[in-house]
Amino acid sequence: MRKVAILGIGQTKVDEHWEKSLREVGGEAAFLAMQDAGVDRVEALFVGNMLSPLISRQNQLGTFFSDWVGLWKQEAVKIEAACGSGAAAFRSALMAVASGDVDSALVLGVEKMTDKPGGEVTAALATAADADYEVEQGVSFVGINALVMRRYMHEYGWKHADFAPFSINAHANAMHNPFARLHDTVTVEKYEKSSMVATPINLMDASPVGDGAAAAVIVPAEKVLRQPRVVVAASAAATDTISVHSRKDPLFLNAAYLSSKQAYQMAGVKPVEVSVFELHDAFTIMAALSLEATGFAERGKGVRLGLENQIGIEGKIPVCTRGGLKARGHPVGATGMYQIVEVVQQLRGECGATQVEDANIGMTQNIGGSGATILTHILRRE
Amino acid sequence: MRKVAILGIGQTKVDEHWEKSLREVGGEAAFLAMQDAGVDRVEALFVGNMLSPLISRQNQLGTFFSDWVGLWKQEAVKIEAACGSGAAAFRSALMAVASGDVDSALVLGVEKMTDKPGGEVTAALATAADADYEVEQGVSFVGINALVMRRYMHEYGWKHADFAPFSINAHANAMHNPFARLHDTVTVEKYEKSSMVATPINLMDASPVGDGAAAAVIVPAEKVLRQPRVVVAASAAATDTISVHSRKDPLFLNAAYLSSKQAYQMAGVKPVEVSVFELHDAFTIMAALSLEATGFAERGKGVRLGLENQIGIEGKIPVCTRGGLKARGHPVGATGMYQIVEVVQQLRGECGATQVEDANIGMTQNIGGSGATILTHILRRE
Repeated sequence: MRKVAILGIGQTKVDEHWEKSLREVGGEAAFLAMQDAGVDRVEALFVGNMLSPLISRQNQLGTFFSDWVGLWKQEAVKIEAACGSGAAAFRSALMAVASGDVDSALVLGVEKMTDKPGGEVTAALATAADADYEVEQGVSFVGINALVMRRYMHEYGWKHADFAPFSINAHANAMHNPFARLHDTVTVEKYEKSSMVATPINLMDASPVGDGAAAAVIVPAEKVLRQPRVVVAASAAATDTISVHSRKDPLFLNAAYLSSKQAYQMAGVKPVEVSVFELHDAFTIMAALSLEATGFAERGKGVRLGLENQIGIEGKIPVCTRGGLKARGHPVGATGMYQIVEVVQQLRGECGATQVEDANIGMTQNIGGSGATILTHILRRE
Repeated sequence: MRKVAILGIGQTKVDEHWEKSLREVGGEAAFLAMQDAGVDRVEALFVGNMLSPLISRQNQLGTFFSDWVGLWKQEAVKIEAACGSGAAAFRSALMAVASGDVDSALVLGVEKMTDKPGGEVTAALATAADADYEVEQGVSFVGINALVMRRYMHEYGWKHADFAPFSINAHANAMHNPFARLHDTVTVEKYEKSSMVATPINLMDASPVGDGAAAAVIVPAEKVLRQPRVVVAASAAATDTISVHSRKDPLFLNAAYLSSKQAYQMAGVKPVEVSVFELHDAFTIMAALSLEATGFAERGKGVRLGLENQIGIEGKIPVCTRGGLKARGHPVGATGMYQIVEVVQQLRGECGATQVEDANIGMTQNIGGSGATILTHILRRE
């Protein structure tokens, strides 16, 4: 397996891009990544997307975008793993370059979600859950997460306000990220008074959807002269049951545990050595569960990391340094690629006010469904 | 890059499986492939599917199936490239095994299409075309192919009946394939009198949709002791513009030309050495265009191969030896994997009445959209 490096990155602001089509939103990030990489051509395109068949009535996004961005003739394919689609596309591209079959690849995570009414989007997002055994019962995707959060609070004795730091931290960091959807400060009071979505998840616990795209150009590491060079130190994926109710323990993200364990091993890295962790805070409860399963907190104590101020830029484990899903926004199939792009920004030292000092090892964790598909990547500055 | 072999294969009959769910149809093929391979576990699962978000309101099919077939914890992902999804999933799995990252993979092509009314399925299939520039104009997927066929007839002077041999050959071969959807004989008269779908494409030109799944277990070739051993000699993918009207020459499948050229080179094989070619005869016109772009006929003369009886089991280039899309059926996202499974059957010598003598090199070509995404694979018996 060849070592792979990230040569260029690009992203669009997460927003309601009603004036732009699916191809325009995705194309923008793709062009920016190629420009940043200094290339006008790659051998293959891997697109991560979840909802375009449902929202835009468009399939075959690989070729749809290779055509649009001028990669005519090149191989192109779409990868889908619900909200984990972005990282899944990145991992597929990685295999193609690592195997030696392809010498350069563009990975594009893209989602256009705001052109339809909210109810239709909620129904589309529910396709991440089990249609026969979850959705058929009437539960929405946020509903499933709400059940998990309530159980966690009951089991470990935390109250709702204890989750506030995840939301506050994400919003604080997003203030310095021009690509973030939300630029407002959250306080404990605002957090507690926010509108309820599905008890106990309120608006400040939930990440906003949005239109957005993020992209990266990857090549064999030996071909990269740019300094600092950012390489992929580890890539791992694992799954759990698709339905939360099928799990022996719904409060443990086993696929996060397995994929991060494998990634640590591949990279030869311990959790304590990770400079920055872009985790999948689709809901505040998911931030807590991710920190626990990935080795940063004991079971039931993920929340404490927030309360003890350890998740900020100067904390033990900085998370959501560009706003996370909560404030940068969660254009579902694009999110995994936003995480990759943001960690590259950290490792290159381009994050200004939210730059983690001496960041040299960054980790991303992208989740499809309610913990069903989890991909962990570790990037390293060389 | 490690050499990869196909250890096991499995398939379900293409049919209207109203009594079986999406998971049951896919699970059946997956279990059969694992049984044939003699394994009860693989490291990763790659699912090819196009329509499940639209027809079954189910996304995240990778984990959906890893859960269902008991591959708990294992990596799983879905790949989509319209009707080319099956081969695209196969190629992704190949990269993962070839790179050394994964030591065994199950590839499952699956589609459940007949649970919805025909109009809804036609609309879903149209998502393979360009939503903004083709579908918005009111053209259906078969409509686009009809325009291409009419142009071909006009340009090269063929009449409709000249395409009959493709349909007749496919149906004749399917008579001996228990997994085929259609078991009836087509004659020139029946072909000519068949109901019109979109002039000049009639029912006997068009492949039937269906529910179906086909699967294979792949591993590094060095691990396979089974005789004969079937290895992947080449894998290549290429794209064209997504809209047919954007092409300088709508009668040439450039992506078939590019991907087959690359595959021939990788495998060190010439067209004349290919024993069997499972091509993508979604419509008879596509069979002709595929034969031309892939090196078996000159431009405008693909039809002649049929008329000269060169596409049958004893012909120069046997195609659709198990019925092809036309008679085995075309469960879109599964089709590419049916082709792989059928070529393995030929190379193993398991095809009975439609066995090609001394078949040692087999080729598959799977097409997404109207020639937009094309994947060519060459398998070899060792």
